[in-house]
Amino acid sequence: MNDEFEFALRVYWEDTDAGGVVFYANYLKFFERARTEWLRALGFEQERLRTELGAMFVVSATGVRYLSPARLDDQLRVTVKPLKLGRVSMDLVQQAWRGQTLLAESEIRIGCVGSADFKPTRIPAAILQAIDTPAP
Amino acid sequence: MNDEFEFALRVYWEDTDAGGVVFYANYLKFFERARTEWLRALGFEQERLRTELGAMFVVSATGVRYLSPARLDDQLRVTVKPLKLGRVSMDLVQQAWRGQTLLAESEIRIGCVGSADFKPTRIPAAILQAIDTPAP
Amino acid sequence: MNDEFEFALRVYWEDTDAGGVVFYANYLKFFERARTEWLRALGFEQERLRTELGAMFVVSATGVRYLSPARLDDQLRVTVKPLKLGRVSMDLVQQAWRGQTLLAESEIRIGCVGSADFKPTRIPAAILQAIDTPAP
Amino acid sequence: MNDEFEFALRVYWEDTDAGGVVFYANYLKFFERARTEWLRALGFEQERLRTELGAMFVVSATGVRYLSPARLDDQLRVTVKPLKLGRVSMDLVQQAWRGQTLLAESEIRIGCVGSADFKPTRIPAAILQAIDTPAP
Repeated sequence: MNDEFEFALRVYWEDTDAGGVVFYANYLKFFERARTEWLRALGFEQERLRTELGAMFVVSATGVRYLSPARLDDQLRVTVKPLKLGRVSMDLVQQAWRGQTLLAESEIRIGCVGSADFKPTRIPAAILQAIDTPAP
Repeated sequence: MNDEFEFALRVYWEDTDAGGVVFYANYLKFFERARTEWLRALGFEQERLRTELGAMFVVSATGVRYLSPARLDDQLRVTVKPLKLGRVSMDLVQQAWRGQTLLAESEIRIGCVGSADFKPTRIPAAILQAIDTPAP
Repeated sequence: MNDEFEFALRVYWEDTDAGGVVFYANYLKFFERARTEWLRALGFEQERLRTELGAMFVVSATGVRYLSPARLDDQLRVTVKPLKLGRVSMDLVQQAWRGQTLLAESEIRIGCVGSADFKPTRIPAAILQAIDTPAP
Repeated sequence: MNDEFEFALRVYWEDTDAGGVVFYANYLKFFERARTEWLRALGFEQERLRTELGAMFVVSATGVRYLSPARLDDQLRVTVKPLKLGRVSMDLVQQAWRGQTLLAESEIRIGCVGSADFKPTRIPAAILQAIDTPAP
């Protein structure tokens, strides 16, 4: 499998709550942005996936542990690491870091569905292959 | 025209930011919820509008003044008052109140578009009529 | 323990994404609203908890399975059911339903922390007692 | 005054709604991100402003016209241009562009308040000076 993918982002006002820290639900947004850029880096843009291959990825399960709070202006690194590739779904491990501090850790299951009928369908072979190929 | 419509909502963690108050962009969500319930109270559900009449309302301009902050657990009243009805768009005045304190005030322009081509189209007569009829 | 608590909410534009359904991250907001109203129904408002008892609940882990999509205008019921009460944290099961269809199911762990130092602290006895008392 | 500042961002699922386009309220988030980076580029981080100078910027009015929809995966440029600098507030013009298409245009008024009492206070001279100095 590929090495871990990293995506950088900044914490803005919109991400915080009255506790003064990032609202926990927003880590799912951060993980999503990183997954999207990971797929793009592999050569697959989601909108093109949908129109050209008739397939969409949908999130079917998310497990997140919140370990340490992020704050306004923090610069975060969000990682993506494939854990298990199935025929119609895959499990990813994603983490959010500030420097050497792990802030949140997740397991995300995404399933592949037909963009017309929303029924489970095989993950396009080209994607599986791209994920499985070691980075040069 | 109808009397002013009122919609009640509560401020939750998701609505706040690190300043300890409601994130200003979220008032647009509050105004949207109130408009949706106002249309529903007039007999028009947006999803049905789209499928049955082939029309959608889209927001084309928003002007908001933020006067006083709302906080976690606050109970707000959000109002809707038609200001000007045109053929393809209407202007509404919307306000957010906590008790007798006006928190935010807006003018919202919504335009009617075809749900297939997204081109401006006449507001369905039934809607204009419902808005223009004084409440009993 | 108390019977299950139910909270009703409506799906608005803000909750949806370009897939035409509720954006999965937003179920965490729905669950949060229901938990807040559950605590309020037990007699504990979060802002007062913080100022009077010096305690805050923070979400430390969330696990969600997304089973069926919700759409614009849907009326949902969100439930709260205590699963395990500890000294400094509790586990809740929360579900989102549309009619008889289960849309999303979660286990949420919330921890009690001091509002000044953010360190784990005992859940106030009055809250544990209120949760443990069967509804009349 | 400085030349126009530009900030690049990508449209993700979280930004869209069931209409298939960016939810209009989210442009306020895009404008906010760009303003934050503009201030940072001038040498002023908001969190440091608050703790070191005891001043915060708050948004007191927003006017936005939505001209053309943005979609998933779109790459946008968001601009910041000071329009009027006052003693306790400033007006900015901000625009969102995709290529040569202007998508949304706004006037944003931000006021300077004391971070303790939230009362209007003079914009720190160093900030006014930094804004007024032509870029090299």
